[in-house]
Amino acid sequence: MSSDRLTHQLQFLIEIDQLKRVLRRTSIIGGERRENTAEHSWHVTLVATVLAEHSNAPIDLFHVQKMLLVHDIVEIDAGDTFAFDAVANLDKEERERAAAKRIFGLLPPDQRDEFYALWEEFDARATPEARFANLADRLVPVLQNYANDGGTWREANLDRTAVNKRLSPIGDGSEEVWAYVRSVLDAAVVRGDILP
Amino acid sequence: MSSDRLTHQLQFLIEIDQLKRVLRRTSIIGGERRENTAEHSWHVTLVATVLAEHSNAPIDLFHVQKMLLVHDIVEIDAGDTFAFDAVANLDKEERERAAAKRIFGLLPPDQRDEFYALWEEFDARATPEARFANLADRLVPVLQNYANDGGTWREANLDRTAVNKRLSPIGDGSEEVWAYVRSVLDAAVVRGDILP
Repeated sequence: MSSDRLTHQLQFLIEIDQLKRVLRRTSIIGGERRENTAEHSWHVTLVATVLAEHSNAPIDLFHVQKMLLVHDIVEIDAGDTFAFDAVANLDKEERERAAAKRIFGLLPPDQRDEFYALWEEFDARATPEARFANLADRLVPVLQNYANDGGTWREANLDRTAVNKRLSPIGDGSEEVWAYVRSVLDAAVVRGDILP
Repeated sequence: MSSDRLTHQLQFLIEIDQLKRVLRRTSIIGGERRENTAEHSWHVTLVATVLAEHSNAPIDLFHVQKMLLVHDIVEIDAGDTFAFDAVANLDKEERERAAAKRIFGLLPPDQRDEFYALWEEFDARATPEARFANLADRLVPVLQNYANDGGTWREANLDRTAVNKRLSPIGDGSEEVWAYVRSVLDAAVVRGDILP
């Protein structure tokens, strides 16, 4: 005998299994298959958990974790949009907004509103928590591409300016982590993974 | 110029990408492939987040989230042990303890100790947080198997007594969720997914 509330929550928790089918552009380390968004969401949440002490500003890590757990759920309907695909990024916001309404709308209203707000907060990058969550989200592909001999940097023939532009928000989360990332990018240019 | 501390943390965060290669017995909903432990960890962390209000006892959800994010990392070395495989479960603890030492040992000592303690707490099921985390971990395969026409219940020819024994700790986390699970198991017996 489930309460109506539990029934709606379980519907949502069954629906989000679909995030395991959404493929990102980046491959897992080793390179034998592309990563899916569910496993990526787990990885970035742990990145934030382990690196929290390096944040430029004090952060509520619990809030960051919740933001990262839900921030990509919209991709179930909207798909993963490659950061360097200018055309696909034109209607990304609209596609994702419709997805957020449908999927978070499966939840009871209070949780629907909480998750919708977390998703919007992540994208706006206006709070210390959102800035640190974005750091985690952008750092993982750096670790993967570098381990995979260039990965998507090489596949998409990216140059250092384009990669820098995409990754510089890491510095808004942590200057120390951004210094590390710049040293990785320097090495990737030397190896020919990224065009100068 | 990274601090020694950051270097160790990044080594750990690169290593855990390997959890995406560890396959569980259960399939994703739709059934076309087996689930990996990284995406499972994401799913169970969100299950706990959404269902926290149903816990029998008050819980610190932040602590539950951290426990669920790290509780299966040992499977990188120890592999996934099917809950109903009596032989594989004989040396599970020993294999997982060695794995925890190696993998959490990549972190700075304070984080190594924190993650090791979270992993032990999950397995001991002695705190309200661990009991609720175990609920999440055991609930997801119920949702998946029921959606997949019986899934591993049917493959392993399990009967209601064996399934009940495995799943009854859900009741230690939430009587309300356990009542729901029992109703799913009743339906699964009627469908022939589980032997009576």
